[in-house]
Amino acid sequence: MKAPSTPDLLSRFAALVGPGHALTEAADKARYLMEWRDLYRGETPLVLRPASTAEVAAILRLAHETKTAIVPQGGNTGLVGGQIPVPGRQEIVVSLERLDRVRSIDPLGNSMVVEAGMPLAAVHAAAEAADRVFPLTLASLGSCQIGGNIATNAGGTAVLAYGNARNLVLGLEVVLADGRVWNGLRRLGKDNAGYDLKQLFIGSEGTLGIVTAAALKLRHRPRGLAAAFVSVASPAAALDLFARAQAAASFGLTGFELMSGLAMEFALRHLPGARLPAAAAPWYVLVEVGSGRSDAEAGAVILDILESAMAAGEALDAAVAQSLSQVDDFWRLRHGMSEVQKHEGGSIKHDVSVPIGDLPAFLDEAMAAVTAAFPGCRPVPFGHMGDGNIHFNVSQPEGGDRQAFLSRWDEMNAVVHDVVRKYDGSVAAEHGVGRLKVDLLAEVKPSLDLELMGRLKDALDPEGILNPGRVIRRS
Amino acid sequence: MKAPSTPDLLSRFAALVGPGHALTEAADKARYLMEWRDLYRGETPLVLRPASTAEVAAILRLAHETKTAIVPQGGNTGLVGGQIPVPGRQEIVVSLERLDRVRSIDPLGNSMVVEAGMPLAAVHAAAEAADRVFPLTLASLGSCQIGGNIATNAGGTAVLAYGNARNLVLGLEVVLADGRVWNGLRRLGKDNAGYDLKQLFIGSEGTLGIVTAAALKLRHRPRGLAAAFVSVASPAAALDLFARAQAAASFGLTGFELMSGLAMEFALRHLPGARLPAAAAPWYVLVEVGSGRSDAEAGAVILDILESAMAAGEALDAAVAQSLSQVDDFWRLRHGMSEVQKHEGGSIKHDVSVPIGDLPAFLDEAMAAVTAAFPGCRPVPFGHMGDGNIHFNVSQPEGGDRQAFLSRWDEMNAVVHDVVRKYDGSVAAEHGVGRLKVDLLAEVKPSLDLELMGRLKDALDPEGILNPGRVIRRS
Repeated sequence: MKAPSTPDLLSRFAALVGPGHALTEAADKARYLMEWRDLYRGETPLVLRPASTAEVAAILRLAHETKTAIVPQGGNTGLVGGQIPVPGRQEIVVSLERLDRVRSIDPLGNSMVVEAGMPLAAVHAAAEAADRVFPLTLASLGSCQIGGNIATNAGGTAVLAYGNARNLVLGLEVVLADGRVWNGLRRLGKDNAGYDLKQLFIGSEGTLGIVTAAALKLRHRPRGLAAAFVSVASPAAALDLFARAQAAASFGLTGFELMSGLAMEFALRHLPGARLPAAAAPWYVLVEVGSGRSDAEAGAVILDILESAMAAGEALDAAVAQSLSQVDDFWRLRHGMSEVQKHEGGSIKHDVSVPIGDLPAFLDEAMAAVTAAFPGCRPVPFGHMGDGNIHFNVSQPEGGDRQAFLSRWDEMNAVVHDVVRKYDGSVAAEHGVGRLKVDLLAEVKPSLDLELMGRLKDALDPEGILNPGRVIRRS
Repeated sequence: MKAPSTPDLLSRFAALVGPGHALTEAADKARYLMEWRDLYRGETPLVLRPASTAEVAAILRLAHETKTAIVPQGGNTGLVGGQIPVPGRQEIVVSLERLDRVRSIDPLGNSMVVEAGMPLAAVHAAAEAADRVFPLTLASLGSCQIGGNIATNAGGTAVLAYGNARNLVLGLEVVLADGRVWNGLRRLGKDNAGYDLKQLFIGSEGTLGIVTAAALKLRHRPRGLAAAFVSVASPAAALDLFARAQAAASFGLTGFELMSGLAMEFALRHLPGARLPAAAAPWYVLVEVGSGRSDAEAGAVILDILESAMAAGEALDAAVAQSLSQVDDFWRLRHGMSEVQKHEGGSIKHDVSVPIGDLPAFLDEAMAAVTAAFPGCRPVPFGHMGDGNIHFNVSQPEGGDRQAFLSRWDEMNAVVHDVVRKYDGSVAAEHGVGRLKVDLLAEVKPSLDLELMGRLKDALDPEGILNPGRVIRRS
């Protein structure tokens, strides 16, 4: 248990940031305490909004000295409760939002140093102003912050070609649990001078240090883009199509998304103006190809893929986007898929991954398992097939009781996660662990993994003040 | 200091591997003790050749119990002495060479599980037999082993498009210092279920655990390839050409190597049958582009790049390879560059990296600095420009004394590394630290970095038995 936050202690913390940036009023704190899906509601005596790395460092020095729990917060878009302070625990929220500057940009060197609180969309804009692209792309683009993206090793829709956040980070600046600042802001393509310390902090969800700045990899913007929307009979057909698309597009395959027929029905029903681009089918695939030179070059690759896939019977039907706005329309269907499920009643979510080659078998088994255990439930899986990452969401039976369905959340999770484990998959593929899955992790991870994680936590945050209770439980 | 290896203890170790696989005779041990450039000569009471993960585990259990130092060894191609047992220290060598099986291969899932002792060339062959490619490529391809590649986070000539070894590993099996086996052999494109423990072991040079198997990422083989050999006036022109090539080839730019004019002269002088493909110039660039579809498509991209680069004055002259064998000829010039330097007398090596955009300034300054400090010396830099990684080698003055020149190795290093540090570069870009650079690292790394590295070492190898004295010095 951490020390209680006495009024005196809170004043000491408040004095470390500029006036107006230590929030104690309920109205001021509200937006830091609410999670957008309303699954978590937080409570805190204090929200701190430091303006600099030095202020973050001062906060952690005091927290370390007084054993005060700190919850770092970026854009507050996390889906697993990591960023929301637990009621009754007196955790102090440290928002990084005021660290929002571009420190430097080097287009010839394809790198950019930015502060943690920059919204991802602002990072994109800064890269684009330098005729480059920072390829990490997620639905919460406008609100999420790059520091949070790095702390959670964010994925999204561009992982296939560019990798997760981990692959897009050249260097980090991190405030350690004791308030010291680790300067790992290197901008090197290769560096084997000792252990790669930045890897520790990427994806550790703020439990091992607070990222305050990052050196990011930039890329040249592909000047050509083409996309197709393909009707397929099954995930197995989609997998064959995936192999075909990889062979033809090679490096240029920038997107390969799988969508179940029912998930598509929901999108068509609830997204204003949505229409199905190709013939109705049990499953759909969105294929996107980039080219360094032209839309025509990308288009030729897409046509090659589709022609041979139709001939091989892998594709039942297909539509090629005739314009960038049609590419956007395709993506809009895909991106709307999570959102529209709320119109169909309660939805129980699973963010899982399995080896890509096992996806068809996994989907068959998981859909059969939930349907057997919850008669009438409607599995609507969709996701990043190219990464083996499926959002295996299950909507309640039509006309059924929402609360009754949602009350069986853990039970449903157990059914799905059993199938995930059979395929040696992950129960936390891209959204992380946070508070939501910390017990689950303790259950599914081998004890040696948990022990090694504990040794890292002890080595880097011996007092356990950084985002306690997230990712890993300590005594 | 570790416990002395008594005859009794050595017998206990020997009993853990099959008969004939505990080597004590000088003739049997010789090839494990000699480094190919003859810079290190080792000494050991015992070379163990375990046949399985279980045997490696048994060895480490005993080593942990008896505090015996263990030196893991792969293909013995390392350039920094990490794999050679130190004379007088009684370190036991554990060769992984008998763990050389493919455990499984999944072409549709683009992954393969292999044991640590497989030569990289055998990994390539196994991938190719499944119509895939494992893209990690280095000069020591035929001898180096995948376990060593992972332990050293190997780079090589395909990093630009595919990343270092770190980016090509999906999962690992590692024997920990106490002999327990950590099974992290996941084959997932996305997994954020807790800390990414495999990152700890990649690039730790056998000091935190012994890699016994790995799940590797496979790729589809680009079906088209094209290359050009370009004469340029300066590294600055090469940098502009690099930006141009990235823009045009985008994902498909698979190689961008820079070679100084003098390095090329050496190659032409000493490589049998070598000829200069394009007009003589102060610097040369090798550009390689891959395509998913055809040589013609890759060739069109190369032509695009060259035409506009000639028009812009970035390229002085260029030759496009007319066949795959000509592509090989281009690479042969580049790959021969290290080897041929020995014909020009003593050579002092630096494996460094700087931010890519700073390469021209770095090269100017470093060449001026060594020439000023060592009159008549001949800098012959070349390397992976696309990764900011230069092998900054310096040959002795013509007709000078080899030993006198080589005796100033540390002095030369200091001059070059000062310039590297000015640009916030790395003094160990791709060859690692080993024994060669452990003192250097202690000198150039911030103390906080060294402290954090020490905490990791203590957390994972508290007895300090794994490759002691490499990467990091412990008391």
